[in-house]
Amino acid sequence: MRVLGIDPGIAIAGFGFIDKIGSKLVPVQYGCIETEAHTPQETRLKQVYDSACALMDKYKPDTVAVEKLFFNKNVTTAFAVGQARGVIILAAAQRGLPVTEYTPLQVKQAVVGYGRAEKRQVQEMVRMFLKLSAIPKPDDVADALAVAICHAHSSVLTQKINEVTRR
Amino acid sequence: MRVLGIDPGIAIAGFGFIDKIGSKLVPVQYGCIETEAHTPQETRLKQVYDSACALMDKYKPDTVAVEKLFFNKNVTTAFAVGQARGVIILAAAQRGLPVTEYTPLQVKQAVVGYGRAEKRQVQEMVRMFLKLSAIPKPDDVADALAVAICHAHSSVLTQKINEVTRR
Repeated sequence: MRVLGIDPGIAIAGFGFIDKIGSKLVPVQYGCIETEAHTPQETRLKQVYDSACALMDKYKPDTVAVEKLFFNKNVTTAFAVGQARGVIILAAAQRGLPVTEYTPLQVKQAVVGYGRAEKRQVQEMVRMFLKLSAIPKPDDVADALAVAICHAHSSVLTQKINEVTRR
Repeated sequence: MRVLGIDPGIAIAGFGFIDKIGSKLVPVQYGCIETEAHTPQETRLKQVYDSACALMDKYKPDTVAVEKLFFNKNVTTAFAVGQARGVIILAAAQRGLPVTEYTPLQVKQAVVGYGRAEKRQVQEMVRMFLKLSAIPKPDDVADALAVAICHAHSSVLTQKINEVTRR
């Protein structure tokens, strides 16, 4: 199963494709989509959408995982992130890919095993799970990989529960 | 000039196409895009996007006007509205249509001439400007028409300023 994890944003959106092979997690490709400030928002949204489409078509994920955000520091930012999130989710929907949302708590619990883990701990666990030599930069990329790992782990759990239920 | 005004939302998005012919404003088509609750958000976003594309392709606006929202009552709502807004703006960008944003203050000032006007006053002015027999329902449709009227008025003003500047 190939999972695409996304940390959405309009200036920068992190992405990470990982393969779950048995119980192993293998990084396929990761990075970020960036758009330039002082560009009309419609142009930036189109750039994010076009890049998301190109990545999905190239790396063909089976499923998409996105962090569910609740930050309340700035409603204007919430709108901007929401807009970027909308066009990425649209790209997934147009390809028939299921989209699953995880709260930051779920991501931390799945990756570190502790819902109040520090950002740095999450990043270090991402590095270890994917056997990377360094923590991926910028933070948006590590965050995208974390939500992808969260989905891979959660789906293992769901599968186990299903197996137990079937007995 | 044909203006498409949008009041974005995921459950319901109002739209209104108006033609500015000289100093007259003529309604072309208005209504709303609705999606069903308890449907995956990716499906709903795709429905909003597909409907927006179909409307733009059928009524071929020259420009799109959207209300700029700042409400702070609920960040989760801001995200959801932002996502719907994102896919509608994407549809405009893919057609090369300029997107202009107006604050609620600008809309009220342009439509009623008073930034603190009541919702009901705005709706009544929309009805009068467009010579409609009744206020369009639901509110989302009247709001979409209001932002379209705001753009039509603002562009008249911009044009006049340009004319004065050119003399």
